[in-house]
Amino acid sequence: MTDKLKIGFIGLGAMGSGIAKNIAKAGFDLRVFNRTAARTAPLAEAGAKVAACPADAAREADIVVTMLADDAATEHVVWGQDGLLSALKPGGIHVAMSTISVALSNRLTEAHRQAEQHFVAAPVLGRPDAAAQAKLFIALAGERAALDRVRPVLESTSQRISEIAEIPAQATVLKLIANFLISTVIESVAEANALALRSGLDPQAMLDFLTSSIFSAPVYKNYGAMITQRNFEPVGFALPLGQKDNRLVLQAAEATHVPMPFATLIRDRFLTARAMNWDHRDWSAVAEVALRDAGVDPQA
Amino acid sequence: MTDKLKIGFIGLGAMGSGIAKNIAKAGFDLRVFNRTAARTAPLAEAGAKVAACPADAAREADIVVTMLADDAATEHVVWGQDGLLSALKPGGIHVAMSTISVALSNRLTEAHRQAEQHFVAAPVLGRPDAAAQAKLFIALAGERAALDRVRPVLESTSQRISEIAEIPAQATVLKLIANFLISTVIESVAEANALALRSGLDPQAMLDFLTSSIFSAPVYKNYGAMITQRNFEPVGFALPLGQKDNRLVLQAAEATHVPMPFATLIRDRFLTARAMNWDHRDWSAVAEVALRDAGVDPQA
Amino acid sequence: MTDKLKIGFIGLGAMGSGIAKNIAKAGFDLRVFNRTAARTAPLAEAGAKVAACPADAAREADIVVTMLADDAATEHVVWGQDGLLSALKPGGIHVAMSTISVALSNRLTEAHRQAEQHFVAAPVLGRPDAAAQAKLFIALAGERAALDRVRPVLESTSQRISEIAEIPAQATVLKLIANFLISTVIESVAEANALALRSGLDPQAMLDFLTSSIFSAPVYKNYGAMITQRNFEPVGFALPLGQKDNRLVLQAAEATHVPMPFATLIRDRFLTARAMNWDHRDWSAVAEVALRDAGVDPQA
Amino acid sequence: MTDKLKIGFIGLGAMGSGIAKNIAKAGFDLRVFNRTAARTAPLAEAGAKVAACPADAAREADIVVTMLADDAATEHVVWGQDGLLSALKPGGIHVAMSTISVALSNRLTEAHRQAEQHFVAAPVLGRPDAAAQAKLFIALAGERAALDRVRPVLESTSQRISEIAEIPAQATVLKLIANFLISTVIESVAEANALALRSGLDPQAMLDFLTSSIFSAPVYKNYGAMITQRNFEPVGFALPLGQKDNRLVLQAAEATHVPMPFATLIRDRFLTARAMNWDHRDWSAVAEVALRDAGVDPQA
Repeated sequence: MTDKLKIGFIGLGAMGSGIAKNIAKAGFDLRVFNRTAARTAPLAEAGAKVAACPADAAREADIVVTMLADDAATEHVVWGQDGLLSALKPGGIHVAMSTISVALSNRLTEAHRQAEQHFVAAPVLGRPDAAAQAKLFIALAGERAALDRVRPVLESTSQRISEIAEIPAQATVLKLIANFLISTVIESVAEANALALRSGLDPQAMLDFLTSSIFSAPVYKNYGAMITQRNFEPVGFALPLGQKDNRLVLQAAEATHVPMPFATLIRDRFLTARAMNWDHRDWSAVAEVALRDAGVDPQA
Repeated sequence: MTDKLKIGFIGLGAMGSGIAKNIAKAGFDLRVFNRTAARTAPLAEAGAKVAACPADAAREADIVVTMLADDAATEHVVWGQDGLLSALKPGGIHVAMSTISVALSNRLTEAHRQAEQHFVAAPVLGRPDAAAQAKLFIALAGERAALDRVRPVLESTSQRISEIAEIPAQATVLKLIANFLISTVIESVAEANALALRSGLDPQAMLDFLTSSIFSAPVYKNYGAMITQRNFEPVGFALPLGQKDNRLVLQAAEATHVPMPFATLIRDRFLTARAMNWDHRDWSAVAEVALRDAGVDPQA
Repeated sequence: MTDKLKIGFIGLGAMGSGIAKNIAKAGFDLRVFNRTAARTAPLAEAGAKVAACPADAAREADIVVTMLADDAATEHVVWGQDGLLSALKPGGIHVAMSTISVALSNRLTEAHRQAEQHFVAAPVLGRPDAAAQAKLFIALAGERAALDRVRPVLESTSQRISEIAEIPAQATVLKLIANFLISTVIESVAEANALALRSGLDPQAMLDFLTSSIFSAPVYKNYGAMITQRNFEPVGFALPLGQKDNRLVLQAAEATHVPMPFATLIRDRFLTARAMNWDHRDWSAVAEVALRDAGVDPQA
Repeated sequence: MTDKLKIGFIGLGAMGSGIAKNIAKAGFDLRVFNRTAARTAPLAEAGAKVAACPADAAREADIVVTMLADDAATEHVVWGQDGLLSALKPGGIHVAMSTISVALSNRLTEAHRQAEQHFVAAPVLGRPDAAAQAKLFIALAGERAALDRVRPVLESTSQRISEIAEIPAQATVLKLIANFLISTVIESVAEANALALRSGLDPQAMLDFLTSSIFSAPVYKNYGAMITQRNFEPVGFALPLGQKDNRLVLQAAEATHVPMPFATLIRDRFLTARAMNWDHRDWSAVAEVALRDAGVDPQA
């Protein structure tokens, strides 16, 4: 029975905490690890065991899930001292839910294959509130049998799971594409906002018209509201993380010789945002750069 | 009673024909004019009278609507020989539904004011099929009383009317912004498509994931399908018209000192598309330029 | 003898004054016109007659030279009231030394041809000090016989004359290309300067190395000094004029379906510069935008 | 006496061979190493000894020079098996003449300092023919005493040495800036060439005018000739190397939060050039992309 599945979970940041809680609530046998141990307390209250190291989280697990900040953190919990790769049993599955590089996705696929384990990419769309409410969208890729196995676990934390391909890296690149598209919405609405402000058009009236017609998607409603109100709180996804994902999509594109001029332009926006010392802001604050270029003082 | 309102309608192209038919069906007293007279026949069948010139369409009208290809055509029917400006009675309303420049919108506002008439900007979102099915979205701007007067006419052809402002040019700039945003969706999905193709990711799987999650808007569904299937038929909006609207938004932005780097990049895409002799294609065919830059042979 | 040639000269701005003086000094029979009459005084002292209107400057002239701010000013002195076109005798030559649009160059060619006159494009490279010192570079285009006729006049004010083509518009487009290339030098050195400043590299050491190696051209030395010293005085070419020439090259490129992404990027730089209220500065001040984007406070 | 200095030289590619020969000719005691041993033969003929490994080249040297393709190759000869770092004596100087990353330049500075050795950055401007003719331009940076020591060696192969700074990385970033500026000349002349071709202006006439006026620098003459003649032979600097240097300047700029939009645009040009399979061409062949975008068939 699926509720007997043993799950290791590594990475209890803003996203991982919500996801792990959903998995615990669904009745799976959960063992969590986080570098900063204090963050494990709420999970322990929810019935999860606490692991001492990544290997400890993986050792008895059928499935070990990672949700970490970047490639370096993921590499560390997989290949580092007390890493999960050497501890996971043959037939075990490593599910990476965080956004990683295409190159790392391919390396993980190969490393787990050589260890007679399986690697599944399951990157998510949604911010921390969506994770907490089990409303994530998941792009899933890996071997058929492994996907069937992990599906009940992922269902506990998502509103929709889309099977993409058998090669994990294809879900990885899809996630990078999704974040790229969000970034283009941010920039395009930012430019529209600059023109509206300079033309005397009320940005709120603009946004209402757009989102009640053909731009009626959450991405326009949510980011559009932040941009037109020039209010970038709460910080759902910090600006340096957004820059990191922009870097990852550009790397994937460079490796396949694909120019992505919108992505390169957004790259430059992130650099100005960082030169402005906006590291602590939500990544949607890059929208302020378009206003600044039009002579509107940026929100501090 | 509103159904006694006398309406002149000038411009029976792909959009105008559908709109005029809806107005006729709604029972208004309609008199139409089109430069190429043959296009008036279906309207005559639907009960409309046929005018010999713009002035003739405007002379007895309470409201005269224009739906024309560009600024030059609009200027011609307003100020040219047998133009509507000198024929429209005091208190009469000129409603421009086509996409015009901000500068022309302001000139029309002033010219009609001096003639003791009213100018209303009512640009629409939607392609010819939406016009035919009375499913347009309309951004409406002008003096309060004039807006109330034209509303029943516009309701006959739209699914939603958004009142934007008292200054007509603000609806005009909003329409330019909307088309700019569509063009950014085309370019961003095009770049995503190039990366997907070069990475082995199935474009259809990509689009399904995106449009069933946070990109669930018609603009992504409709243009996304054309771009990922690389099928740009039918031609809902010809490429040179798309280029024209890009030029108009850049002009509006230049006049207010607003850099719009996404718009300038799309400007260059249109130039390559025209250098490729793609004038007869739908404007979404500019998406092929991103593929071409990545070494994928464009669809002829 | 060439010194008997009668020359009309229209436009005594910073460039035109220097050129006209050189022509006067060379002994030609010169008659000058300027909209603001006060500027004719130094020329009168130098022996020139003063005309009351463009037609008056052109009426007895073998050659009439125009050196005006933009297309509109040129159109006005050619086709406006008391314009030169109707006054110039058959066989007379109109030499346009200012930077005009390709479209206007072609219209002038045709208009003068129909009037049995000749049009020669003779745009110049060089700032006001070069004009004063007869050190201009001139690109010359027009019919063979006309070129031979105007050459001695132009030699009085230039260090080099390059015959380009028989079609005047080809010298016009070449001038637009030259100004485009200068603008790319400004932007590229500006970006280099930003990187140098942020990396601790001394901009002066950078510039010395570059201009003493393969970048040993005046364009790098002169603009490079202004940019690295962040000193944009004196104003040799005002920023809005630079923007105008950027607009002209983009128009010429658009008409021939040529994307020029460097030029479009510089277009956006000019918009930010104008949003910053830098209209009174030399056009090289657009270099400050690159620093501003990197978080370096711009020079006021 | 300086001619008694013992020099190790590692890396006998197109650039390194010419430089090493000049050093040999100048009478220094030279010991060379190259991964592909066959390339050492001409040096042996010129009197150089041949080393078996990088350590062997460095062991008795006062100065060891590296001229290698990229960071990876440099890292390998420094830190790899039989690398130079552990062999060079205290007080020995490592001079890197190749273009490396700013990050590597800083790492080398620190590593050699810890080994009580010295690191000097001496990147060069000039293509293989300039190397062979001892006509290179060298940007030199490092500690005062070390610079004095290496100067006679570098004088044997250069026409000019510019001392930049005491921190080696500042010469490194200057070299990246120089290559960036060359790439902007390539792109800007390419765009000018596209406009000229499409406008009927003779590219040769264009180039002659420009390079005989304010663009009279080798960078415009040499690259301008290749671009306007559309002849990219001989391959002085292969396209993937040009792409590498573009990547390095973008990395340096990213690390200091400096947007360089011209550099990012050129990044995309390189990707299209690589998608076209132009890896074997000179890097100036990226100029063909601008023509291609304007509908001119690229030279194969």
